[in-house]
This record gives sequence, structure tokens and C-alpha cells, in this order.
Amino acid sequence: MGIHTYLQSLSKLERIHRAPGEFKFEEHNVAAHSFKVAQYAQLLATVEEQSGTKIDWKSLYEKALNHDYSEIFIGDIKTPVKYATPELREMLAQVEEGMTKKFIEAEFPDELLPIYLEKLKEGKDETVEGRILAVADKMDQVYEAFNEIEKGNTERVYREMYEEALLSIQKINLHCVSYFFNHILAEMLEDDTETTEGIRIITDKILAK
Amino acid sequence: MGIHTYLQSLSKLERIHRAPGEFKFEEHNVAAHSFKVAQYAQLLATVEEQSGTKIDWKSLYEKALNHDYSEIFIGDIKTPVKYATPELREMLAQVEEGMTKKFIEAEFPDELLPIYLEKLKEGKDETVEGRILAVADKMDQVYEAFNEIEKGNTERVYREMYEEALLSIQKINLHCVSYFFNHILAEMLEDDTETTEGIRIITDKILAK
Amino acid sequence: MGIHTYLQSLSKLERIHRAPGEFKFEEHNVAAHSFKVAQYAQLLATVEEQSGTKIDWKSLYEKALNHDYSEIFIGDIKTPVKYATPELREMLAQVEEGMTKKFIEAEFPDELLPIYLEKLKEGKDETVEGRILAVADKMDQVYEAFNEIEKGNTERVYREMYEEALLSIQKINLHCVSYFFNHILAEMLEDDTETTEGIRIITDKILAK
Amino acid sequence: MGIHTYLQSLSKLERIHRAPGEFKFEEHNVAAHSFKVAQYAQLLATVEEQSGTKIDWKSLYEKALNHDYSEIFIGDIKTPVKYATPELREMLAQVEEGMTKKFIEAEFPDELLPIYLEKLKEGKDETVEGRILAVADKMDQVYEAFNEIEKGNTERVYREMYEEALLSIQKINLHCVSYFFNHILAEMLEDDTETTEGIRIITDKILAK
Amino acid sequence: MGIHTYLQSLSKLERIHRAPGEFKFEEHNVAAHSFKVAQYAQLLATVEEQSGTKIDWKSLYEKALNHDYSEIFIGDIKTPVKYATPELREMLAQVEEGMTKKFIEAEFPDELLPIYLEKLKEGKDETVEGRILAVADKMDQVYEAFNEIEKGNTERVYREMYEEALLSIQKINLHCVSYFFNHILAEMLEDDTETTEGIRIITDKILAK
Amino acid sequence: MGIHTYLQSLSKLERIHRAPGEFKFEEHNVAAHSFKVAQYAQLLATVEEQSGTKIDWKSLYEKALNHDYSEIFIGDIKTPVKYATPELREMLAQVEEGMTKKFIEAEFPDELLPIYLEKLKEGKDETVEGRILAVADKMDQVYEAFNEIEKGNTERVYREMYEEALLSIQKINLHCVSYFFNHILAEMLEDDTETTEGIRIITDKILAK
Repeated sequence: MGIHTYLQSLSKLERIHRAPGEFKFEEHNVAAHSFKVAQYAQLLATVEEQSGTKIDWKSLYEKALNHDYSEIFIGDIKTPVKYATPELREMLAQVEEGMTKKFIEAEFPDELLPIYLEKLKEGKDETVEGRILAVADKMDQVYEAFNEIEKGNTERVYREMYEEALLSIQKINLHCVSYFFNHILAEMLEDDTETTEGIRIITDKILAK
Repeated sequence: MGIHTYLQSLSKLERIHRAPGEFKFEEHNVAAHSFKVAQYAQLLATVEEQSGTKIDWKSLYEKALNHDYSEIFIGDIKTPVKYATPELREMLAQVEEGMTKKFIEAEFPDELLPIYLEKLKEGKDETVEGRILAVADKMDQVYEAFNEIEKGNTERVYREMYEEALLSIQKINLHCVSYFFNHILAEMLEDDTETTEGIRIITDKILAK
Repeated sequence: MGIHTYLQSLSKLERIHRAPGEFKFEEHNVAAHSFKVAQYAQLLATVEEQSGTKIDWKSLYEKALNHDYSEIFIGDIKTPVKYATPELREMLAQVEEGMTKKFIEAEFPDELLPIYLEKLKEGKDETVEGRILAVADKMDQVYEAFNEIEKGNTERVYREMYEEALLSIQKINLHCVSYFFNHILAEMLEDDTETTEGIRIITDKILAK
Repeated sequence: MGIHTYLQSLSKLERIHRAPGEFKFEEHNVAAHSFKVAQYAQLLATVEEQSGTKIDWKSLYEKALNHDYSEIFIGDIKTPVKYATPELREMLAQVEEGMTKKFIEAEFPDELLPIYLEKLKEGKDETVEGRILAVADKMDQVYEAFNEIEKGNTERVYREMYEEALLSIQKINLHCVSYFFNHILAEMLEDDTETTEGIRIITDKILAK
Repeated sequence: MGIHTYLQSLSKLERIHRAPGEFKFEEHNVAAHSFKVAQYAQLLATVEEQSGTKIDWKSLYEKALNHDYSEIFIGDIKTPVKYATPELREMLAQVEEGMTKKFIEAEFPDELLPIYLEKLKEGKDETVEGRILAVADKMDQVYEAFNEIEKGNTERVYREMYEEALLSIQKINLHCVSYFFNHILAEMLEDDTETTEGIRIITDKILAK
Repeated sequence: MGIHTYLQSLSKLERIHRAPGEFKFEEHNVAAHSFKVAQYAQLLATVEEQSGTKIDWKSLYEKALNHDYSEIFIGDIKTPVKYATPELREMLAQVEEGMTKKFIEAEFPDELLPIYLEKLKEGKDETVEGRILAVADKMDQVYEAFNEIEKGNTERVYREMYEEALLSIQKINLHCVSYFFNHILAEMLEDDTETTEGIRIITDKILAK
């Protein structure tokens, strides 16, 4: 039924929760996650720009806002499944792309169709903006895991999520990555010395690598 | 960490909700769904047995109780994705089977290992018990959709779920399928004539096919 | 309104929560509890059978699935009230039985009536299956209490529930009870040495008795 | 351990929900229910006093605030069970009284003990204040049922609750009962003519009796 | 549309939650808060009366029950905003009073109008009952903060709320304030020595002032 | 504690819910609302640009993402209070600005301070981007109200919210406003002819003005 169908579907992102199946003290939906990723991208790109990199701000914010839209069609496939074999991963990516394309072609009027085909494409490419999105997305994983551990969540999965996210960020070559480690993460770990001791140990190990 | 890891993981099924992303008045978790499927199987197999069919009750109940356990590894992949191409479906089924097998081999002691490899296999096979499970699983989809529509949920998806489930049940060749249509569904539609008018129309169309 | 009324009433068990009035990090409904009890029964009976005991599997699973159905009529009467005097307990048991009987007679057709009168009877009798149900039911109390304590719940009631459940299991004469203490409980306590220290102390005291 | 134990236990009333097992659009806990009953009592007693009746206000408010405290010990026993036989009802009342008394004697210091034994007694006696409490308690049942029906809840139980509450209020001999029917109920039914048509029919039938 | 509008609006207090924006393990609505404040007032005034002070019980309970009603019109303005400047505070108080007055004049019939204008006025005046209300209101802040800290909530705001509430109570000149510190708070801190160590340190500092 | 304090505070927006005190079938938090407003802004500005207007995309997205950040300091003051008198409104705006400024100055390092003072300023100014933000913000109010009404919510407040939002959008002079009325709203009202009849009547009245 046109653009209204697209706008209405955004509220589905409010009903999809992150890390389904895991015990957590606080739920996070994909709409709020996308908001936070866009906020982190705002900060990271500001820092990156101050180091002399040119930022395409329009592209940056659209990548952040749209990066999880396709969860509406695909659902939440657990990471180990997604990455089980390169063939499966490739096939799933094709299906995802195909379904998003089909939806846009069915719902958008001609004048908006090519624009939204572009906007809703996979955003984590090799551009500066794509790499900032990758950092921002993993930063939210760091915060989600950190906040659970700080509240006393003993499930191993949050330690794994925290570690995996830090390792992923470390591999991305950007000025704002240093800023993240030297300023944001440093302040985060000072926040509450008592409860974050366990997190500090994991962090120090990773940084020593 | 052994059998305890298996038992502990069952509580993950309490945290995975059905039909993520859709608006609903009432949430249902996979553990409660499995309970209801086992209850429906109990009724359907009782009826089937009275028609002279021999039932392997041990197999029936284990199929019902274990049929969604692998959602712990796989997550909730939306049906249109799962069935996008026969290759993808086959590949996903292999990955699912592989992950379940790997988990059982890692956690179960030798004396229980072959038994649980058998118990946690895909249950919807061509045996009487496998077909009763298929009916019972779709029956819960009928009830979930019916209850939302009756409460005034106008989302199209519940009409589609209702229709798809009835059509699937209709295709299964069992005595208890007639019993479902003639007794259970008939009583359900009489339950509240006012609110179920819309449902009755869908139902009559399907039964007329 | 017939069998549909019975099937519909099962969703009431999804809305009745265990341990009402107590603070908990995670809620559990009676439908999900029944599912887990049936799963524990599956494991315990498998172990019991390996020790040479004959299991009536049909009876076992039906006892597990149906054991809390009467909560629909009775509500959640707190244990100390239920057991205040033997007369009260006896009277409540009679009322419960009477209400369940009246419901089945009103709703089930003739061909299913005697079968469901049998199925929905109190399941914790002196048969092997009745005793396995008693262990499985208490095992879920152990897990519920353990999971709250592990998450940092300081309410005394969970320590009491944990202790009471272990003591009840200990009194039941079955091979699978030894298996529970030697394997399942042992693995559970090794799961997270830091947080389970308090639980280990209670457990050691009970096992020393 | 002392008065703190009593004060702390009040938060249990925030965790006990009314009408467990029934589908509802909005949950109500016993603490909020007690607040609303005290508010209704405030209004009803003001009206009653204006008709020339003398009100013991201290007694009235304490009856309203304390009338469901014993649910902490007793749990939620469904009404049909409670009233199954006069003997059972009497026995349950005795157990309830005994447990409340035992708790007060264990926790309260000497100077407060007799006062709280009096305060926490069953409040619905034959005094004016006891009868106003009875009306106020049933008025909340009217509002809970009305609000569910107005929101489109089709469960029969809310129609029964609404009817039963109106019939109970009608039997109580107080000026404020006429006020309730002539003013409050009249305004309630005018609130939304469209959705309350069904309620109006029930109400007119009852008032015609 | 009359008194029904007032009674219906009470359920809004069930939907307004305290301390919005802060992470908490347990939510508290304003209706349940008002119930607890009335319960604390009952205890504090009983103690105060035993010290020889005359209590106007009608006034006391109505102040407690009605003290947060105006949140329906005003919403939850954060304390630092409310107290930013004396002019702003005065202006907000006038607006609040004006809106409550306007509502009562629009909804209540003549015979109840002056009575409810009086009942719904700001209750924390310099009378004994007004001061007991102030203590009772802060006591609930103490309990809310204490319960979060005891459950492992590391957010600084609960330590601040706990400290601010104790300091406010300490400034109020009533016999029941001594009783609160010597009996209630003392028992509260003994409740669980392990988890309340941090709270004890804050408390001892405040009492030493 | 620096920038981490800012990033951490974003999760407070996940815990602040819109329209507190009103009954609703679905809750919306301020973080998810900000995400949807940014999405609507994306669409509206794309349309506006196609009509030949120049868009400052960086400014547009930052206005949308940051427009409700100050709710963290201010809380949810109900609209009628905020607008009670021009003096109060002005004073509240000053306090809000002052608190946001004080927070930024306390937490941000020198190199980011002036940038964030700019970013977190009130965004609804007279620029094209400021006006698009105003439309987008009201569009979410339209969707929230529409979705409640469609689900059967009979509370008058949602009809008022719907009407007020449409009237506000109508007053804004932008090409995308016509697009909103002619395409988006038109499609929305066609979505479900049965349930949206009431909404259509309100809409037609407004468009006729």
C-alpha cells in the first residue's frame, strides 16, 4: 500500500529484541539500537573529521539509521548459523538483498524507488562512513554487554560479546578507533571500579595483543 | 559442562517469543508453545487410537516436547527466507542438524549420547506420530491467530497465519484431522458469534476447497 | 462448549505465574514449568530405565504434562495454608478433585470422558512414574531457586525453596535420584564457582545429613 | 525481623496481581487496588455523612488500607473454591486469621502488638465502615471489569465479574449505594455510548430486578 | 463527565511510574506508592500518638491518599528543574493548583465541590499530619532506594536518593522520626549484613552529622 | 566522567516512555521515537529536495537525532502545564537550556564542547531543516494515535492527539506537507477501511478547514 507500508513497518523494529534467548536485566529493541548507533556515529565522525578525514554526513547518518532495516524480512538468524559456511553466508545475503529489493519495488512510487534501493543497501562497505558504521554497531554491543555485566549478569555470553566486539573494533583502521580506546573505553572502565574489575581484566588482555 | 548445560538451556526456550516483530495482545514463548503442542498431541492421538490406529506414545510425546529445541542454536529465521530456494532450505537444515549434533556430542555422557541424538532429531517425519506432531504444531498456530483476531487484532498477518495453518492441517491424512475440523474448530467458531464472524468466512472458504 | 473449552483453558496456564508475591529477576509461567518438568522426566526416566526399571512412558509423560492443570480451578494457595492442618489439606484436595471432575463431565464428549477423568487425576502416586514426577517437579524448584540466587537475588525465600526441594528429592527412592545428586547437581555447582559458593554450603549441609 | 519485616512485606502486594489466569489488557496489583478502594471509600463515606450518618473515619481508612493484607500469607484462592462448602470456608478463614496473628506476634513489639492485631482483622463487618468497605471493594471490581469490556475484551469472565459486583452492591443498605447507582454508574455508562452498549444491557437487567 | 471522571482518572496513577529514565530492577507506580505512604503514615501516627501527640486521623489518611493526585495534570517534572529558581517553583505551584481547581470545578457536583477542593490541596503543611506525610513520603524513597541497592543496582542515583531522603527525614521534628531511625532503619540495616554494608556506611555518616 | 557519561545517558531515553499515564496497547520509548522521527525526516527531506529545495542533510539528521535529548534533565512536563502562561514557558525553556549547557560543559572535553553545545540546542527553528523536524515529530504523533485507535483504543486522548498533530502539520509551509496529506495520510486511511472509519471523519473535518 505504498510508502505508508514502509513507515508503518518501522514499528516492527520496536518489537524485535536483541539477543533473543539470553537472560538480560534490560531489553533493547532494534529501533532504539539504531538510534544509539546513529548517535555513536555522530560522535565518531566528529572525531574523525577533526583528524582531517572528509566525512559524507548524509551517507553516514543514512547508513546508521537504515543498517538493520532488513531484520524485518529476515528475522534473527544467530551468528554461528550465518557464518557456518561461506556458501550459506553468501546465499543468505543474496536472499536478504532480494527480499528487500522486492519490497521496495512493490511499495515505493517511481520517483523514490531508485533512491530507497540505494538507501536500504548493506551499509558496512569499505568507505569511511561504512567503517564508522561498523565501529558504531560494535560499540553498542560493547555497551549492551558492559551494562549487563555491571548489573551482575553472570551469563558467559556477555563476556564473549564484550570481547568479540572489542576485537572487531580493534581491527578497523580509523582515527576514531584510537579515540574510542583511549577516551571512551577508559572512562567506561573507571565508572565503577568495584563492579568492572572483571571487565578490566578482559580488556587489558585484548589491548595487550 | 554436561547434562546440566542441556537442562539449563531449556530456559532459553522461555525467552524466545513466537512471531517476533508482529503486534500482538499476548506473547507466547517457545517453552509454553511446546507444552501446548504436547497437550494437543495427547488429544489427537487419543482420538486417532480410538479409530484403530496404533500409537507409539513414547515417540509421540518426545517428538512434541523436543520439536523446537534447535531454535536455541538457530534463532528465528522467517519462513519466507527459509523457503526462498530449495538449496537454501537444504543448507539451513544441514547446518541446524550439524549444530545440534555437535552440542549433544560435547555435553552428553557416553551412555546418554546415542539416545539424545535420536530424541533431538527433526520429528515431523512420515510416521503416524510425526504426522500428529505436524497437526498439533499447526493447531497452536490456529489458536494463536484465532485468539488475536478475537481480541480485535487487525494485523493482516494473523488472518494469513490462520488460513495457512488450516490449509496445512487439511492436507494431512489422519482420522484426527476430521475430528479437528468437525468438533474442535466447530466449537471454536461457535464460541463467540459476534467477534468470530470474520474468521468463519475464512474458514468456510477453506473448507469449500 | 466442549473440547475447545479444555484446549482454550490451557492458555490460562501461560498467565499463572509461579511464586507470586516474591521478587524475582525472571518470571516463570505454569505452562513453561510443565514443559520443563516433562523434559526432566524424560531424562530421569531414561536414566532409571538404564538401571533396569521398567517405565510406562505414556503414563510418565501424561503425569508430567497434566500435573498442574487443576491450578486453573484452584488458584495458587500458598503451601503453608495448604498444609496448615491435615483436615484442611484433605478438604482442599476433595474440592480440587470435585471441581476438576465437574469440569470434565461438563465439557468432554462421552467417548473421551473416562479417559480424561483418568488423565487429569493427581499424578504423584506411588508408581515409579509418580515418583519420577515428584523428583522432576522438585528439580524445577531447584533450578528456579538456583537461577535467582546466581543472579544475585538476596531474598531468603529462594534459599528456603532450594533447600526444601533438595531435601524432598533426597527422600525419594529411585536410581535417578543418585544420578541427580552425583551428576546434575554436581555440574550445576561447578557452573560458576564465584556466585554459587553460598549454594554449595547449603548443598553440602544437606548431603551430610 | 520486627516492624521493618511488616513494612517490607507491603511490597509483596505490588507483586500479586488480581484475576490471575484471565486475559486482560491491563494488570492491577493488590497495592494499587487497595489505594483505589481507599479512594472510593473516601467518596462513599463523604456522601453517607451528608445523608446524616456518623462515620468513624479512622476505622474506615484503616479497613480500606488493610483489607487485603492477608493475601501475603494466603495467596489467591479462587472464589468458587473458597465458597465450595461452608466448612471449608470457615476452616480457611480460621487458618488465615491464625497465620496473620502468628506473624504479628512474631514481628511487632509489645507496644504495637494489640493495635495491629486489631488493625489487620477482617474489615468487612456489620458496622457502617465495614459495609462501606464492602461497597468500595466491589466498586473496584466494577471498574476493572468495565475497563476491560470497554477496551474490547470478549472473555465472558468480565461480564460475570461486572454482574456479580453490581448485584453484591445492590444488596447493601446504605445511602451511598443509591448514590453509586444514580450518579457514578449512570455517568460511567454515558462515557462512551458506542462501546458500552453491551454493559448497559446487563446493567438494566440488574436494576430491573 | 462528573465524579466518574475523577474515579476513572485514579487508574492513571497506576500507569505513571516513579523515577522514569533510571534503570531499576522493580517498577513502582504512583497508586501503589500512595498506598505504601498511607501505610507508613498509619504506623508513624500510631507511634506519635503513643508519645502524647493528638492526631487528626481523617486528615492524616486523606493527605496520604491524595498527596500525588496532581501528577495526573502536571506530569513528572524532575526535582532539579522544579527547584531551579524560587520564581519557577512558585510559578509551577500556582499552575498546578490552578489546574487541579479547574478540574474539580468542572467535574464535581455542588455538594462535593468545596470538600474536594480542600481534600486535593497540597498536603505537606506545618500541621502534625502534614509533617507525618512528609516523613512517610521520604520513607518510601528510602525503601525504594534500599531495595534497589540490596538487589545489586550500581546506579549512583539510588545512593543519592537514599541519602537525600534520610537527610530530609532527619530535619523533621517529630517523635516518630526518632522511632524511624532507632527501630525501622536499624532493623532494615540488619536485614542482610552482607549486601547492605555500603548502605550502612552512608547511614552512619548521616547519623554522625 | 566525560563522554562516556553522555553515551551512557542515551540509554535513559530507552527508559522514558511517551504519553505516561494514558492507557495504550503498545508502549513507545523516546529512543525509538527519535529513530522514527529521523526516518520520517529522511523521507520528507527527500521529497522536499525533489521539489527544488536545498537540504542541509547533516543539520537535518542531527536535529532529528538530538531533538528530545533534554528530556533526560527535564522529565515529562505535560503540554498544558508547559504552555499555561508565556512567562512559565519562557522560564522552563531557560532552565532546560541552562541544564543542558551545564551538563555539556561538565562532561565534554574542550575540542568537542562547542560542537555539542550547538548540536544539542533546540532544533525546531525556522530553517527548512527545523521545519521538517517539526513535521516529522508530529508525524510520529499521528502514527502513535492512529495505531492505538486502529487497535480499538477508545480513550479520547488519542483522537485529540491525532487531531492536534494534523492541525500542526497543516500550518507548516513545505512541499513535503502536501506530500504527507496527499500520499502518506491517504494510504494510511485506506489501510483498513473498517477500523479507520472514525479516523477518516476527523481527518475530513480537518482537511475541510
